[in-house]
Amino acid sequence: MKRQSEAKKWQVLSELDRLRVVLVATRNPLNLGAAALAMSNFGALRLRVVNPYELAFREARSAVGAAELLANAEEFTSTADAVADCALVVGTTAVGHRELQHSVYRLDEGGGLIRQQLATVPVAVLFGSEKTGLGNEDLSHCHWLMRIPTREKHISMNLGQAVAVTLYELARNGVTKAKGKQAAAPAISGEMERVTSVLLEALRESGYSSQVAEASTEEKARRMIRRMDLNSNDAQVLLGMLRQILWKLRSGGSEP
Amino acid sequence: MKRQSEAKKWQVLSELDRLRVVLVATRNPLNLGAAALAMSNFGALRLRVVNPYELAFREARSAVGAAELLANAEEFTSTADAVADCALVVGTTAVGHRELQHSVYRLDEGGGLIRQQLATVPVAVLFGSEKTGLGNEDLSHCHWLMRIPTREKHISMNLGQAVAVTLYELARNGVTKAKGKQAAAPAISGEMERVTSVLLEALRESGYSSQVAEASTEEKARRMIRRMDLNSNDAQVLLGMLRQILWKLRSGGSEP
Repeated sequence: MKRQSEAKKWQVLSELDRLRVVLVATRNPLNLGAAALAMSNFGALRLRVVNPYELAFREARSAVGAAELLANAEEFTSTADAVADCALVVGTTAVGHRELQHSVYRLDEGGGLIRQQLATVPVAVLFGSEKTGLGNEDLSHCHWLMRIPTREKHISMNLGQAVAVTLYELARNGVTKAKGKQAAAPAISGEMERVTSVLLEALRESGYSSQVAEASTEEKARRMIRRMDLNSNDAQVLLGMLRQILWKLRSGGSEP
Repeated sequence: MKRQSEAKKWQVLSELDRLRVVLVATRNPLNLGAAALAMSNFGALRLRVVNPYELAFREARSAVGAAELLANAEEFTSTADAVADCALVVGTTAVGHRELQHSVYRLDEGGGLIRQQLATVPVAVLFGSEKTGLGNEDLSHCHWLMRIPTREKHISMNLGQAVAVTLYELARNGVTKAKGKQAAAPAISGEMERVTSVLLEALRESGYSSQVAEASTEEKARRMIRRMDLNSNDAQVLLGMLRQILWKLRSGGSEP
């Protein structure tokens, strides 16, 4: 049962098949490897690189967990070529550092627009180099830009993390709802009442109840047990614990 | 005009003030630094580390862009201490590798629940070590678990990227405003831990714990107490009851 619903989810995720993640002039092999890892995590398997630092690309290919994805990466010498077959080209930016000619959408807004297009056509999302981001020539190929809503005091993100967050947003809503482990059945009133009465017995044996009005303690305990929102299993476990404690209280606490 | 709406947005982001990001047994300084960077990006400035590899913590402190955040990180020797002041404790998991006792929410669902709590109380989100994730002892402090919806063939994420994606989700919609009648304040972890430890003492005195493996009883009891969803008042009442019972168990049960 579980497996089926999982399988269905990954099918939906595979709609990122039409997405091309384009890394332009990446310098650091660790970032290239990290970007590839995140792509593999979220099912975006088509990586394109434009003029990566030679060393970065070579070393990144050994990235554990994403070797195949990196081996299948397509290498281009110009952004124009890398996006030539795409119907929508979106640049990512931290904004703020220059006058922009493009519309800028927040990731959650832009993500929705991208998902719509991905249903039918190839879409490229571009990430610039760690140091300078996308250049004007790269930007000129973009239909619009997208930014991750970070804090004004610290706008610029690590490249691998920016790719991860972007792909999470793109994969997020395409994914069928999966629910967590089935919650245990809630305890029924009779179970809660048994817990309550054994607790009250133990309190009586221990002299707690005599400290205050007995009736008030009983109501207080009953309400408290109800508020606990016990599931049926927990009610049984708690009952077993309290019974053992009660038995000990009655048979004489610490042996001499 | 744009600036104003931007400024307003950052105000919302700063509501992650009540979030504590707890990294347990982190091994790699690059991951610690990357986690700190993502925290700074999304305005979650309170980092707690539990038993990081000494070298990892020392080297990470030089992480460019997050040095101050790392310098202000609080170091703990146990998960219990690291979450003691938090009313909600959420573990992150890749699931799949073991039977889980907890409910597991997808990040987008769990994120909503966390945002609601962050409006009023401190919340801890735990990330385990790169190699093994969170251990059973760590998990026993958690109210529930959360997973990032990754592809079945490649479930496990890089630590720094998992932190980035999680914080993006939490910052994305801002923190939910608390509405309606104020419910009783939820018990914080420290209160729940006191209840747990007095209960365990009582179980030990009554001979319950010796019936089965002691460690397993401890984790079972801890998880059960967390599931009870106690408010602070109830935690105090329950603690008083259990202390009285424990006192009686120790002083000798039924008088002759």
